[in-house]
Formats: sequence, structure tokens, C-alpha cells
Amino acid sequence: MEVKKQLHSADMRNVKVKDGFWSPMQKLVTDVVIPYQKSILNDEVPGAEKSHAIENFRIASGEQTGEFYGMVFQDSDVAKWLEAVAYSLILKPDEKLEAEADSLIDLIGRAQEPDGYLNTFFSVKEPDRKWTDLQECHELYCDGHMIEAAVAYYQATGKTNLLDIMKKNADLICSRFGKDKVRGIPGHEEIELALMRLYRVTGDEKYKETAGYFLNERGTEPNYFAEEVKKRDGWSYWHMDPEGREYAQNHKPVKEQDKAVGHAVRAAYLYTGMADYASESGDAEMYEACKRLWRNIVDRQMYVTGGIGATVHGEAFSIDYELPNDLVYAETCASVAMAFFARRMLEIEPKGEYADILEKELYNGILSGMQLDGKRFFYVNPLEVVPGVSGELPEYKHVLPERPGWYACACCPPNVARLVTSLAQYAWGENETSVYAHTYLGGQATFRNGAVITCESAYPWSGSVKYTIDTDKSFTFAIHIPGWCHEWSISVNGAEVTPELKDGYVLLDRSWKAGDTVELSLAMEPRRLYANTHVRADAGCVAIARGPVVYCFEQADNGAQLSALRLPRAAQLTVDEKGEERLGGVPVITAEGEREVSGGALYSEEPPKTEAAPLRAVPYYAWGNRGGGEMRVWIRE
Amino acid sequence: MEVKKQLHSADMRNVKVKDGFWSPMQKLVTDVVIPYQKSILNDEVPGAEKSHAIENFRIASGEQTGEFYGMVFQDSDVAKWLEAVAYSLILKPDEKLEAEADSLIDLIGRAQEPDGYLNTFFSVKEPDRKWTDLQECHELYCDGHMIEAAVAYYQATGKTNLLDIMKKNADLICSRFGKDKVRGIPGHEEIELALMRLYRVTGDEKYKETAGYFLNERGTEPNYFAEEVKKRDGWSYWHMDPEGREYAQNHKPVKEQDKAVGHAVRAAYLYTGMADYASESGDAEMYEACKRLWRNIVDRQMYVTGGIGATVHGEAFSIDYELPNDLVYAETCASVAMAFFARRMLEIEPKGEYADILEKELYNGILSGMQLDGKRFFYVNPLEVVPGVSGELPEYKHVLPERPGWYACACCPPNVARLVTSLAQYAWGENETSVYAHTYLGGQATFRNGAVITCESAYPWSGSVKYTIDTDKSFTFAIHIPGWCHEWSISVNGAEVTPELKDGYVLLDRSWKAGDTVELSLAMEPRRLYANTHVRADAGCVAIARGPVVYCFEQADNGAQLSALRLPRAAQLTVDEKGEERLGGVPVITAEGEREVSGGALYSEEPPKTEAAPLRAVPYYAWGNRGGGEMRVWIRE
Repeated sequence: MEVKKQLHSADMRNVKVKDGFWSPMQKLVTDVVIPYQKSILNDEVPGAEKSHAIENFRIASGEQTGEFYGMVFQDSDVAKWLEAVAYSLILKPDEKLEAEADSLIDLIGRAQEPDGYLNTFFSVKEPDRKWTDLQECHELYCDGHMIEAAVAYYQATGKTNLLDIMKKNADLICSRFGKDKVRGIPGHEEIELALMRLYRVTGDEKYKETAGYFLNERGTEPNYFAEEVKKRDGWSYWHMDPEGREYAQNHKPVKEQDKAVGHAVRAAYLYTGMADYASESGDAEMYEACKRLWRNIVDRQMYVTGGIGATVHGEAFSIDYELPNDLVYAETCASVAMAFFARRMLEIEPKGEYADILEKELYNGILSGMQLDGKRFFYVNPLEVVPGVSGELPEYKHVLPERPGWYACACCPPNVARLVTSLAQYAWGENETSVYAHTYLGGQATFRNGAVITCESAYPWSGSVKYTIDTDKSFTFAIHIPGWCHEWSISVNGAEVTPELKDGYVLLDRSWKAGDTVELSLAMEPRRLYANTHVRADAGCVAIARGPVVYCFEQADNGAQLSALRLPRAAQLTVDEKGEERLGGVPVITAEGEREVSGGALYSEEPPKTEAAPLRAVPYYAWGNRGGGEMRVWIRE
Repeated sequence: MEVKKQLHSADMRNVKVKDGFWSPMQKLVTDVVIPYQKSILNDEVPGAEKSHAIENFRIASGEQTGEFYGMVFQDSDVAKWLEAVAYSLILKPDEKLEAEADSLIDLIGRAQEPDGYLNTFFSVKEPDRKWTDLQECHELYCDGHMIEAAVAYYQATGKTNLLDIMKKNADLICSRFGKDKVRGIPGHEEIELALMRLYRVTGDEKYKETAGYFLNERGTEPNYFAEEVKKRDGWSYWHMDPEGREYAQNHKPVKEQDKAVGHAVRAAYLYTGMADYASESGDAEMYEACKRLWRNIVDRQMYVTGGIGATVHGEAFSIDYELPNDLVYAETCASVAMAFFARRMLEIEPKGEYADILEKELYNGILSGMQLDGKRFFYVNPLEVVPGVSGELPEYKHVLPERPGWYACACCPPNVARLVTSLAQYAWGENETSVYAHTYLGGQATFRNGAVITCESAYPWSGSVKYTIDTDKSFTFAIHIPGWCHEWSISVNGAEVTPELKDGYVLLDRSWKAGDTVELSLAMEPRRLYANTHVRADAGCVAIARGPVVYCFEQADNGAQLSALRLPRAAQLTVDEKGEERLGGVPVITAEGEREVSGGALYSEEPPKTEAAPLRAVPYYAWGNRGGGEMRVWIRE
């Protein structure tokens, strides 16, 4: 088949978000997360682990003396913060913040070397080792993040200050790496999708070509990482094994890959870059690989919450269907990256299944990463937590039972921040003839074809969504009908219509008049979910969800020993709209369940006695906001 | 209460074992395991990891040149082999083997230093570091094992050759360590129980006193291991943390301990030594600690198979009720050690609950360590095995799905060998007035009070046991009624009797006439077992057992994806006496079960469909004898 990008994501500047669910989250990011992260980057938070990230740029610029400090990829913290700031400035103009960003960008410019090179670790600490350890040292990764920030800052403010810096940097990369140039691939993918973003705003073909080079060079023989090790003098940053090829998806050419392997964030960044490249280059083989990898993840390697990367060992994908709920990794960043991948797949072919996964990530796996106060963050998102085990026993050390404040490796919080602030581009897609609503984000959006649409919804708590068309225009208004929804209706100007449902979208193709209304009603009955019987961790268990929101059971509502609870198949699931005040009034789901109670013996011929136990489930993303205690998504049926 | 040893274990020389179940196992050990291990110790097995254990003694004796090779505790392999040889000579006199043992003992004598010191690692490799690293270097551990071998060889043959060597060694230890002498405790307990064995055959009080010293010094302040580190010059064998105190049960005085912690083999050897000391010294506080530790293990930390030590991290006990079936450790040696502990507790107070655990270990956790051909051994005894996961994924590397041939750290095979060959002392207890049958070991036993009893049984496959009394004597014949048995009857000379049942033993107090018969009939219905609801790993699951034998489900009988199988509560368990030929004809248990089958989706609102599935369970100890594949003890109900 021919591959052609069918949709653009919405231009965030043309979307005013006014959403009961997401606006407070965005406000949390703009008002709490971004200022807090700024303090962290400037080493102004007493007691927090020193970041030194901005100081590294000062030292690299020669304006300060001192040593580089932090992770080899410390620069990327600055980049991700700047990217979030850019989106934040769209949501909420802030002259002071913009001036601070401009000042930081000036500093970055001064830290850049004359040829465009930009990396404070190498400039300050290892100037003679540039580009010699791509496997371990994240130069291309950091550059990629700063390119993303540059594109975002340009899109948000129209300013080319950071864009000029990063074009110069990207030009250096493009002049250095490629066929008939120096060979190289990044250890941590990111540059590919970043160069594609730069290509999209500049139209400069060399960025696309170099992205394509990095993608297609990956997994080829001889193993680049082994080659670069041979060329070095024994120096190594992490002492990684260059032959651990699956870890960095370097085990075979990307177009031949069919199973998601290795470090999950690297993998999903790679797949995102592959989809970007396929959509812009028309490379059908590349797109087929994207589809295969998507299917493998979604059909065999994804938690019901959207979490991907089941094992802490390499923060990686495991074998198919091996999805332990307690040993889990499911990094927040990996869910963010999966949302990236989903958006790219939607741009190539607007299919509801991509929007379904996008929603799953947004309302579950991503949001669970952030405390409701915006001040604490999960890196790992477990589906079962047991105090005394989680975060305590050696195998479970990584599974923290409560969100900690900040990490030395601060990748997840800014990733959540940039995702949440740029939500508009995930909600809306467009092309010359159509507007696509992938989810029901409240507010008003203006599209390149002239369409203006206002959305009012109380999603995800209510399935009633009202659109008002604010312009006279002919276009197809395509609205996603979620895969989880079995009963829905749609009316135009109050009259029910039965439009075509194609690939998970209803297609309303009309000459619209200003003031036309479209009302969508999605049945929001709580649902029981069963895992494939290949998933041994979930055998005999059921999970519950309502709309896109997966629920979980916490000790705070259900007492301890959640493994002794059962939700019989016949038990009615009831939505309590009064909700849980301590979690911002979110609806809870209740049911008449059972608790098994045994005598004192460790083993007995007497089966445990069954007692009635009222069960109460809260949205998974909100777990861990009421102190410690057990938590389970999958409950015995 | 007053503590007094109420029973002696039977003198093995006075028991002729002729048992349908155990005699073939003993033959396997005498005819296969012991000769094989001899070849290993002599480095005569092509392809096997080099042992060098006997060569180390040759080098230490000065008769060979070369370097020490192997684990720091390599000497203990020789000791455990000699101990098994001793028991084997009781079972099956063998002049050639005895001559070989004598020759090896002579070599050991020549490797001993003039003051009695015996350890080839230190003699050969680190002569200036003797006794300076008790935490890590296993000197007292190796001595303990050689003392056990010496006592056993003396008991088996009447020869004092090894006993004299080890008395000299023990005298050195007793003269060195103690109150007002040099302070010290072993890192790996073993010397305590060994000195108690030596005390019992020699009557020399100093051995008991020094055992008591090592026991009571443990866990006291200041931390001995930290002290000895300070005295060294930075040298360390394993670089263990002296402050990891629970690992070696060094966290508090043993009389104050109430939860089994740390390395499970060390712990159970310690508790065995504590029970030995309590029984011989009358130390009631020590006995109370034994009872508390016993209760903690049996009520909260033991697998249904008798396995103890749930985690690979430190090969250790975990937290209460945390008994994962797949991540499990449950080392074979730990089950052997638990049988030691049980026998000592029986000697102090003959209570059925101790005999129940002894049986559980013998028929399950210990025997599962050995392949049915006696040639391959498990170190780790899992209760759930999944190919692709077990032995493969990083967290599961230690859980081998099939028994490997031999280990560099060869502790388990000889431990099984010495246990199986010395079984008689576990089966029978005696004192001046009574004979106790803890289990129903076929053969003839003569007791110190003159009683001679012949036992005929097909246990554990049949519950019919016939005893013939072969002497005229008045004594109490106490026969264990297993805790798992709810229906039983007993008759004397064909007439049913209703004797007192006390602490799990029926007490037949009579003037016996030669030719009297006692017939015991134990109902052997297959049983369902349920775990305490605190055990999250077993929630919703059932295990099955018949008599003392726990059963399991293997892929070989039930197909793959055992987690999708269910054994409904109403399903009849049927014993198929025809049995499984490939496992030596053992009875299997069948039931009409169910298999859940789902569609292709990873998550679905459709519950899995249920299909009828005939289930077939085999004895747990025999698992893994028919090629690879899944295995589960706990099956969903």
C-alpha cells in the first residue's frame, strides 16, 4: 500500500483548552510542576538532589568555572523543561517565564561550540571524546530533546532563537553522520523523531534524510556499538555490553523488527521516529514494521493501564504475555512515548484503535505518574502494591509504594509535563477536508481548513459531549467512538443521525452552519475486563474500567489483604457519582464483593470462609494519594 | 518447664530397612550418587566442573604440589561424602568402599596440622589468616561437617580413625574459643550441632560447652563480625557486609529470636544446634526460642512442600507469608536442615506436629532435589515453573526448569545422600520405656530396651501398615497418626483397639508377646489444601496431597498454560493406582477440571470460555523427570 500522512495533529496555538478534567491538570503543570522543576534545575530546592543542569551550561559557556555534574544526559532535563515551558506559554502567556526561557536559551547558545556542537558533558569534561561513545553517552539523545524544545518554542512563540541554535546543531549532525559520511547510531533513540519534527517546521530535506539514515542504519552489520568500542582506548561511561543488542533495538534492521524488545522508552521513541519517517517519506516497509511492532505491544506486551516495559531489568519489554503486576516496571516515560507513537500512527491512518490506546495512556499509564498535587512522581507504575514487599524486598526495590519527590534521573516528571501541556495536538487531527476528534477535549479549536469547533464535555466522567460548529464550512467532522463503547448515539441539531462508522470514527460530512450542534452520547457503564489466558499473572482475575479510566482497589477503601477479596461475576458494579473527596471528587465504583478469611494455619483442608465485603474502586491514575497501603488493579473474580 | 530429652533416635546399625519406597532411593544413593560423587571429588568426571576437593587435601598434606582450588568450603564436600559413605556402609557393607574411605581418612589425618587445625584452604593458601575471617571463610563450618562425618563413621564402623582426627580438631576449637578465651562465632552455623553430636558419642562436656558458647555468643554486642573486620588488614574473601546481621542470624541473641531470618540453611542448622543443646543442657530458654522459631517457620514461612527460604536474595527467609511459587528459592539443603531440626524437636518432645513436618520434608521438599535416576539435582525447588520465564528472565535465573548435573557449590546432592542413607534415625525413636514410630519405614528394628519390631508397609502409597513384635517385652509402642489423617483404625492381633492418642501418637502400652501384630490403617483419600489468606501467591488456588505426598500438575500430563486450568471445588479427586510408568509407576490423581480459553485480544470484556479438561497430578518430588515444560503445585479452584 501507499503510505501517506492522512492527518496533521492540531496546531496547539489554535486550541483553547477549557476542560473539566484536563484544565486543572494543565494548571498543575503550569503553576506547580514547571516552577518546581525550574527551581530544581537551578539547584534552589533545599534537600533535593542537586541537578546542576543549568550550571553545567554556565560552565560550558565559560562564564562559570567548575566541573560538570550529573547524569551524562543531564542537558536533556533542561531541554524537556524548555519544551514544557513552550507549551505552557500557549496555554497561559507569562512574560516573566518567557523572558527566563529566552535568557536560558541565550545561555545555551553561548554554551554551543562554534561548529554547532552542544553537549555540556563533553564540552566541559571530555572534549576529546565527542561522538566516540554513541552507545552510552546520549549526545544525540540530548540534541534530540533540545531540537524538540526548539521546535516547540518556535511554534509557541514564533521566536527562532532556540531553533537557530538547534538548526546549527542539527546541521552538524547531518554533515557528520550518514551514508558516505561517518557511521553512527544513537544508543538511546530520540534524534530520529526530533529531526523529523525539525524537518516538518523547516522543510529541509536533509533532516528527514538523516533521520532515515539513523533509522535504517540501526541493527545492521557490523554492530556499530562494537565497532566504536574497538576504536576507543578502553574508556567507557557505563561499561555497557555492545552485544546486548536487543536492549537498544539494535538486533536487526528496524524494517525487519516484529517484536518490541529492550528498553521500552528507547523502543517507543524509535517506533515514533519510524512512524514519522514512514509518513513523510512514504516508506511502506517502514510503516509495515511500525504496524507489526504496534500489534506486538498492544496484543501481547501492554498492561491494561497502558503500561509498557514489564521488567526492571533493562527497563525493558519482557517476553510476550509476561506482565507481572507486582514486579512490573511500566515506566511513566514509556507510556508517554507510547502516546507519541499512537499519535503518529493516527496521523498516517486515523483508526480508532490508535485513539483507544492514546486514551488508555492519557487517562491511566501517564497520569498515574503524577501525584494529584503535582509535586511527586512515579517512575514505575505498578498494578499491585503490597507494603513490606513493594519497594522493600530485593526483587521489588524499584516498585515504590508511594510517589517520591524527585529523581536524580529526572526523566519522567518533565515528560508528563510536556505531554499534558501539549494535549491539544493529541485530541484533534485535521486535513484539508476533515477534522478528527480523537478524544473529547473541552474548549475551542480552529483548524487550518477554517472550521471552528467548540467542545463541551465532562469526559471521562460523563459520556455526553456537545460540539458547536462556529463557522459556515463544508467538511467532514470525524468523531472517535471508543472501542470500549458498545452503545452510543449521535445527533445533529437535536436530531439523531446514523452516519457511517469507519475505522472507529463516525464521519459527519456536511455543509455546516454556524451554530450547528453535534451531540454525542456514549454509554459509560462500568465494564469488567479479562486478560488473555496467556497472561498468567491475571489468571482468574478481573479488572474494572469505566470509559477510558481503569479503576483499582486500594487499602484505603477496602482494608488490607486485597488478594483475599473477590468480585463475583454476578456482582453489580455501581457508579457512585458523589465520588471520593480526597481524590478531587472522582466517581468511584462500588460492588458487593467477598472477602475470604482463613483460620490461623498456614495450610488447611478447610477452604477459607467467605464474608460479604463492600468493594470500592477508584481511578487507577489517582492511586497512592491517600497514604500508603495495598493496591491492586486485578481482583479475583 | 523442665527440658529433658525424651527420646533417642534409633541406632541405625540396629535397623534393617526394607521399604518399597525408600529402599530403592537408598540403593540409588549407595549405587549411583555415592560412586558418582566419589568420581567428582577425584576429578574423574569428564566435562564436570573440577572439584579438586581431594587434591586439596593431598596438597595440604605435602604429598602433592599445587594450589588450592574451589570454594573456600570445598573441604565440606569431602566431609559430607564421607558421612554418606558411613551410612551407606550400614545399609550395604562394602569392603572396597570402606578401604577407600579409610585411605581418604588417612589422607585427612596427614593434612591435619600438628595442633589439630584442619582446613585445606587456609593450610595451603592463607596460612597466616587462620581464624581471622570466621564470617566468610567457613573454617568452623568445614570442621563441623568433618566432625559429623567422624561421628557417623565411628557409629557405622566402630573405627575411631576419623573420630580421633576430629576430636583433636575439636579440642583445638574448644581450647581457642569461649568465655575468657578468644571470641568468635561462625558465619555459617554447623559447628554447634556437630559438637553436640561429638558430645553425644564421647560424653566430653567441653564439646557441649563450646557448642553452647557459639550459640549464646551469637547476636551479642559488639558485633563479632564487625570486630574481626577491623582487626584485618583489609583482606576479605567475599566482601560481605558484617552489618548484614540477619543474614547469619547474628541480629540478636539466639534465645531472644522469634522469627526465622536470613540464609535458610544457616538458620535451620543453627536451630538444630539450639535444640540439641537445649535437650542435653536442659536450657529452657533455649528450648522456648526453638519452639518460637519452629512456629514462625511452620505457621508463616514454609511452602506446602516443606520448602523454606523463599527468596534467592541471600538464599533466605523472606517476610511472613511471602511465599512466591515462581520466584521461590526453597533450597534442597534447607529442607534437609529442617528435617534435622524436626528430628531434634521430636527428641525433646515426641509430638506429632514435628513428625508431620519431618514427613513433609522427606516426601516432598528433600526428595524433589534428586532426579529419579540419582544423577541430577535441584538446588532450588520451585512450585511453579514456566519455560521462557524460569531459568531465563533475570529475576528467575535461579529457578532452573530441569535438574542440572552437578554444581560447583555442591552442597545439595551430598546433603540428600546423607539424609536418605540415614533415614532409619528419622523413622524411629526410643527411650527406656517406649518405642516411637514417627513414620512407617519398612524393615526390622531392634531397640536398646530389647524390643524388636518388624514393619511392613507400602507407605506412602497405601495407609495399611503392619507391625510384628518379635520379642517378649513390656513397653509402650507409640505410633504416629499423621496430622493429615482424619480416619484411622488400629488393631492388635486382629482386634480393633482404641488406645490413647496423645500429641499425635497412639500409645500401645502392653506386655508384648513375640508374634503380636499391630495393624494400622490410615485413610488415604486425596486431600485439597488451601493456603492461609495472608499468602497472596496462593489466593484462589488449591493444592492436592495424598498421605504425606504433595502432588503437582505438569505440562506432560495437562498441556501448557497451567494457569488457565481450574480444579473446581466439586470435582472428584480420583487415585489412579495404575500410576505413571515413566515415574516408576507412582499413583497419579485425576479429576475433571476446566480450562479457560480466551480469544486473541489481550484484554476483553468477554470472560474466557470454559472447556472441560481432564486433570492429572503426579507426586511433586517426581516432577521434572519427563522433559521440560510447565509445572504448578497450586492450581486455581
